[in-house]
Amino acid sequence: MTGKNDAEVRVEKRNENHPGDQLIINCLPLDQSERQEFLQAAPGVRQEFIVDTDMRQSMHWLIDVPESLRSEATIILGNPPAEQVVACRNLVWLQTSSAGVDAYMKPGVLPPGAMLTSASGAYGQSVSEHMFAMMWALMKDLPAYRDNQRLGRWEPRGPVLSPHGCQVLVLGTGDIGASFARLAKAVGARTIGIRRHPDQPVEGFDRLAGFDDLDALLPEMDVVALALPSTPQTRHIIDDHRLALMKSTAVLINAGRGDAVDCMALAQALDKDGIFGAGLDVTEPEPLPEDHPLWRQPRCLLTPHVAGGAYLPSNMDKVREICLDNLHRFMDGRPLRNRMR
Amino acid sequence: MTGKNDAEVRVEKRNENHPGDQLIINCLPLDQSERQEFLQAAPGVRQEFIVDTDMRQSMHWLIDVPESLRSEATIILGNPPAEQVVACRNLVWLQTSSAGVDAYMKPGVLPPGAMLTSASGAYGQSVSEHMFAMMWALMKDLPAYRDNQRLGRWEPRGPVLSPHGCQVLVLGTGDIGASFARLAKAVGARTIGIRRHPDQPVEGFDRLAGFDDLDALLPEMDVVALALPSTPQTRHIIDDHRLALMKSTAVLINAGRGDAVDCMALAQALDKDGIFGAGLDVTEPEPLPEDHPLWRQPRCLLTPHVAGGAYLPSNMDKVREICLDNLHRFMDGRPLRNRMR
Repeated sequence: MTGKNDAEVRVEKRNENHPGDQLIINCLPLDQSERQEFLQAAPGVRQEFIVDTDMRQSMHWLIDVPESLRSEATIILGNPPAEQVVACRNLVWLQTSSAGVDAYMKPGVLPPGAMLTSASGAYGQSVSEHMFAMMWALMKDLPAYRDNQRLGRWEPRGPVLSPHGCQVLVLGTGDIGASFARLAKAVGARTIGIRRHPDQPVEGFDRLAGFDDLDALLPEMDVVALALPSTPQTRHIIDDHRLALMKSTAVLINAGRGDAVDCMALAQALDKDGIFGAGLDVTEPEPLPEDHPLWRQPRCLLTPHVAGGAYLPSNMDKVREICLDNLHRFMDGRPLRNRMR
Repeated sequence: MTGKNDAEVRVEKRNENHPGDQLIINCLPLDQSERQEFLQAAPGVRQEFIVDTDMRQSMHWLIDVPESLRSEATIILGNPPAEQVVACRNLVWLQTSSAGVDAYMKPGVLPPGAMLTSASGAYGQSVSEHMFAMMWALMKDLPAYRDNQRLGRWEPRGPVLSPHGCQVLVLGTGDIGASFARLAKAVGARTIGIRRHPDQPVEGFDRLAGFDDLDALLPEMDVVALALPSTPQTRHIIDDHRLALMKSTAVLINAGRGDAVDCMALAQALDKDGIFGAGLDVTEPEPLPEDHPLWRQPRCLLTPHVAGGAYLPSNMDKVREICLDNLHRFMDGRPLRNRMR
């Protein structure tokens, strides 16, 4: 018993015996010197670069793998459409440029035994910063002032808030949640993280609590920020009941998955001044129906799931670093980072 | 030679001999227990409270002093219209609730020798936070996303920015500028302050420079923030020439005085993508004319001179603290804080 699965055994054989049998489909938007780094990481292995640097600023995640290359591909770096991956029957490893890998986890997408690794960790800065920007904008009533600006209205509105001295609750204490907490702490907030295992400390949080403590904490919180994956346990974790527990001066931020917040209950809470404001980069459904009240709610700021994209140039640097490191590891036979299966 | 001016001599005489001859017109929005503090600070002195706590959230600065009280008033705490102050011929001390005192510095407004003190220092937090919120909103393109939201549009726009690792230039290193620099530094920016005397260090700034260095620094800056008073030297300090020196990815913020920025030159710079965005809480003129292009510029965020108002509740606490401390000092014959004349 070696503990190695079929794919691992298969790739070792290829490495040892026929490195030329391998084919890396590299879907990352690389310039010439970056391509050289990837070529040097896998010497003797054929590597096809199928996009150029024009794609760097694109929000298009899915990259078409030319049909002629699909059956030969053994390694893919990037996110092809799942239905194209199905055709890559010799695939031994897929490294995504996204943090989420749901599409490739579905049965039948990857060949049996193929490995899957994500770019988890590349997006913590951009998503947490987007959440932080939304929090500040809402606390200073900037969305409503923007609406007034477009109407040519120059008139003071009402009270504003400050994160200084606030209590900030972050649901989800991974890369994104912890980055957000560090930002909030840096401007004078006290940070509390909710996680499954609150006994393990996480940098950036003054205190940790479990999901069971949520109802007891909510009435004291000035900011409630969600950076949760989508699971049956997190669906509508912020519902009408929990919105009713929140302060009328509280701000809600969601940049995790849209279904963590009941958007209709949120619209009702905002309409009756139940909370001060909400910033959503993700919604349920996505986008919201045309007639959904949140589109025109002055104290709800919506952005179209852009917090985690390639729009912050340094994100792509981090994705490239993870992919390159994993390619080195793969060639050396070392364990891969961010292994999802 | 005592070094005392007429007003000081006059008030000392009153204190010693006839405290009952004095009349304090208290224009601050105080509750009952706060009024008691002010009464206890000036025992035996008649004190008229002319506004109540309803005014706390108001952006109305100017408080009418009843005509019958004007000739008797010796001390005013708050901001009456300048023309009413002209009628207060026995005034020995005016303590404003504003940071700016321009209106009362004009010749003929205050009686000869009357003292003038400001509430400088009370607004540093709220103005710097408003500037910081504007900076984040612009860097993440939130104003333009807000416009899309109102149109029911769910579509990614383009590149965004991060203050992390940025160079932030702050013109004016007083209370507001230094508070803004501390916030920027806390989220990973490098801060450079421009001041008349760059040899004196100021907390929050990594480096200080003089106004003569401005042109050399501008091409390197990611954020340019203005927290300057209005003087002939600061008028249009950001003009078409200096906008042209700035990076196409730079963000400009102004919450000092509107005339520091040539708003028409700014509109042109934004139209041709000369800079990334601008946030203005003050404009020239104020408000801008109805047809001014900045009203509808996607990357210009306008707010109606609200950064320094009473809308952050803690501002009024700080104003009250300054006024009360100065009243104690006045009664004790100690030097007043924030003396402007």
